[in-house]
Amino acid sequence: MPSPVPAHPSLRVAVLGCGVVGTEVVRLLTTQAADLASRVGAPLELVGVAVRDVETERDAVVDRALLTADAEALVERADVVVEVMGGIEPARSLLLRAIAGGASVVTANKALLAQDGPTLYAAADEAGVDVYFEAAVAGAIPIVRPVRESLAGDRVTRVLGIVNGTTNYVLDKMASEGLDLDQAVKEAQALGYAEADPTADVEGYDAAAKAAILASLAFHTRVSIEDVSREGITSLTADDVLWAQRTGYVLKLLAIAERGTADGVEGVQVRVHPALVPVSHPLANVRGAYNAVFVEAEAAGELMFYGRGAGGEPTASAVLGDVVSVARHRVLGGKGPIESRYAELPVLPAAAARTRYQVRLEVADRPGVLAQVSTVLASHDVSIEAVRQTPVTETPDADYARLVITTHAAPEHALRSTVEAITGLDVVRRVVSVLRVEGA
Amino acid sequence: MPSPVPAHPSLRVAVLGCGVVGTEVVRLLTTQAADLASRVGAPLELVGVAVRDVETERDAVVDRALLTADAEALVERADVVVEVMGGIEPARSLLLRAIAGGASVVTANKALLAQDGPTLYAAADEAGVDVYFEAAVAGAIPIVRPVRESLAGDRVTRVLGIVNGTTNYVLDKMASEGLDLDQAVKEAQALGYAEADPTADVEGYDAAAKAAILASLAFHTRVSIEDVSREGITSLTADDVLWAQRTGYVLKLLAIAERGTADGVEGVQVRVHPALVPVSHPLANVRGAYNAVFVEAEAAGELMFYGRGAGGEPTASAVLGDVVSVARHRVLGGKGPIESRYAELPVLPAAAARTRYQVRLEVADRPGVLAQVSTVLASHDVSIEAVRQTPVTETPDADYARLVITTHAAPEHALRSTVEAITGLDVVRRVVSVLRVEGA
Ligand SMILES: NC(=O)c1ccc[n+]([C@@H]2O[C@H](COP(=O)([O-])OP(=O)(O)OC[C@H]3O[C@@H](n4cnc5c(N)ncnc54)[C@H](OP(=O)(O)O)[C@@H]3O)[C@@H](O)[C@H]2O)c1
Ligand SMILES: NC(=O)c1ccc[n+]([C@@H]2O[C@H](COP(=O)([O-])OP(=O)(O)OC[C@H]3O[C@@H](n4cnc5c(N)ncnc54)[C@H](OP(=O)(O)O)[C@@H]3O)[C@@H](O)[C@H]2O)c1
Repeated sequence: MPSPVPAHPSLRVAVLGCGVVGTEVVRLLTTQAADLASRVGAPLELVGVAVRDVETERDAVVDRALLTADAEALVERADVVVEVMGGIEPARSLLLRAIAGGASVVTANKALLAQDGPTLYAAADEAGVDVYFEAAVAGAIPIVRPVRESLAGDRVTRVLGIVNGTTNYVLDKMASEGLDLDQAVKEAQALGYAEADPTADVEGYDAAAKAAILASLAFHTRVSIEDVSREGITSLTADDVLWAQRTGYVLKLLAIAERGTADGVEGVQVRVHPALVPVSHPLANVRGAYNAVFVEAEAAGELMFYGRGAGGEPTASAVLGDVVSVARHRVLGGKGPIESRYAELPVLPAAAARTRYQVRLEVADRPGVLAQVSTVLASHDVSIEAVRQTPVTETPDADYARLVITTHAAPEHALRSTVEAITGLDVVRRVVSVLRVEGA
Repeated sequence: MPSPVPAHPSLRVAVLGCGVVGTEVVRLLTTQAADLASRVGAPLELVGVAVRDVETERDAVVDRALLTADAEALVERADVVVEVMGGIEPARSLLLRAIAGGASVVTANKALLAQDGPTLYAAADEAGVDVYFEAAVAGAIPIVRPVRESLAGDRVTRVLGIVNGTTNYVLDKMASEGLDLDQAVKEAQALGYAEADPTADVEGYDAAAKAAILASLAFHTRVSIEDVSREGITSLTADDVLWAQRTGYVLKLLAIAERGTADGVEGVQVRVHPALVPVSHPLANVRGAYNAVFVEAEAAGELMFYGRGAGGEPTASAVLGDVVSVARHRVLGGKGPIESRYAELPVLPAAAARTRYQVRLEVADRPGVLAQVSTVLASHDVSIEAVRQTPVTETPDADYARLVITTHAAPEHALRSTVEAITGLDVVRRVVSVLRVEGA
């Protein structure tokens, strides 16, 4: 297909990093050059690829002549800088230098944005250039653009995301094959879904960075990773996963951002933790390494965005979409959304969250236990939605019964003191687990 | 929350139509005024609402002083014109007049866009203003922006959409309650999900308009509603729905646009028809009046966008997102994407589509039937993926057996001649149904 030759001079693109994502960015810039030129209105010229080691063997698509270890010099001669090297430094300094030099930037670096995004946004605002970062949250899934632009006329009330593919894969394996956590993590590592050190994923740090970015966008306020209350999946057992299924739920690691009030103050609450999601909820069907972000807005109602949350190619697709947007602005004029933080909503403490809970207990197998436990809940103003008792006869190897209580929404502190009080009852042998229920 | 007073003078917004969608557009413009001003960088001033009859009783949110029957005069005094009146004329003339006068326009009018969008796009391009239409496809679901912008660096290969909530609700009811089509349509009408005359929905015209718009965007080419091969749900029976379930599928009305080749020519194929979707496919879980669009792209992989496809509030949310985008361009400069049709891909005939099929037969209950039928398929180069036979004993009231054949992908013409030949076999009593299988 002949594309019309654009009249605009070509735009110089620099790519910082040539790893999993960078290689695919270079590939798309190369193989899609004609289509990209048509969409941008000017050819995109790849002027250099910064790496640590120019001697390392690279994919054949990468022209060795473009490799450089001097990223600082590279950013000086680009109109668009794509940062896919990761980490805080030197990524931050390089992006600031690019911005100061008048380049627009595209980054996939969630760690940097969640820690210090506002510095970049302010610099870009002053320089009149764009900072785009679709790939930083949920990989290939268009979520930043929809939240910033499509929902700009609406009021988002809640965001629930499965934004870490590794933990989703692990929990899925535990559920489908009855594996325990360690086994499932090992499988994920063998398949390349989990890193040798899986801490950032299983402890929820990666999801927390994305939660901070999503919350900032959705609520037009500043949320950094330090504001996110975080709990990973490491304490979950095969038994937790099994009981989730038995009671009609699926266990997911969720990134949650929602409007709320604490002591009469309106604000946002942002957290990452495992949660029971009802099987009928659209998030319950998000399997394996896929990601999804579920958004509730006042007028739009429920929306969900689903797709690949990681991987070189999907992430590069999101990066290139941003490259086209910022490049078009350079050709046609205009600027993308700037940081919208006018709402200045305070971040509320984790304890302010009101959620439903499922509490699993081992209790004495005798009459009156449920009455005692219910009384404790009632005295703490925690109301019961459902109870399930499994008598000792169903667990012949045990001398205790099981009790699974699902509560209506209750504040965290009320639940905490309730659990303490229940633990003290002599008919209660053990509080096995306390899990939040979301999306119901 | 105090919003900073924007320095830019206010932008004048005209709304054409004050029905289901228009009323909610007026409500959001009114109740969210402060937030909108912050996001746009200038206040949005509603200068008028055009209706047919200014005497009709309206929702209290609509200031009667703003109502006018003179839409032509109204568009002359607006910076942004929102068209939510529907129909081809006078909507088209009013939008062209608005554009010629230098206003940017936002429309939810899929019928107009699918029939004559290019006229609007060309006029807007010449006048240097925006035409935005997120609400025209799948209501509240951000799909136009993601496809036009987020995927601008990728190559879309296929789009599968559940884009008509009425038919999705009807098929859902048939599946969950065993209703036949007429009963399910009546229920949908009683609940306001289907109109008194359901033709546009059940015959697939509404879905075809959306398919044309989606195909144009996804493949950077021009597709009008006349290019869309269309088949509605009216011939589907309760039995079709039941057998879909028995064989692991869900029946959905899909809007499909995909790349393909016919006689060596590369092009796009766009069609609307009922299809069997495997229960494990993300589209299979889209229930009731919800919509979803599933997109396959070379780098991004599989993506899905899910939400409310209709209704006043959800549609108004999408409209307002567009209003903010075009208004920001007026404040900050710049312009949104223009019609991207550089690919100039021809629209291929429906017969060029290669899909999998499920053929359901009533056959004589004697040995050798399957061999005869298989021979016919093989001689037409249609290969069998799965066969299921239900002997006469399972249907004691009948003197025939049932045969369900699922094929591998085959061209439509091959399947058509196969079915003709099968019909001619004397062991075959009847070809009960021939349905396409998609998303596998
Ligand atoms: N991988 C994914 O699926 C994914 C998904 C979403 C977002 N992201 C984000 O994308 C970014 C890149 O991820 P990745 O997986 O592609 O990482 P990666 O495979 O480790 O690649 C990093 C690249 O950056 C280069 N680099 C690192 N430090 C450098 C320095 N100081 N100077 C010059 N070059 C340097 C490396 O050079 P050498 O090759 O010479 O070592 C390497 O080419 C990260 O921010 C990550 O969070 C990744
Ligand atoms: N409803 C949905 O869920 C939905 C979803 C997506 C897209 N859309 C699209 O949105 C548009 C509006 O749909 P709707 O459901 O809101 O329609 P509606 O309820 O029928 O409202 C149409 C409005 O337009 C006014 N109008 C019609 N013809 C006019 C004319 N010639 N001059 C001045 N005013 C005129 C009507 O005035 P009167 O009130 O005086 O009769 C009425 O207020 C359509 O293009 C539709 O396809 C609707």
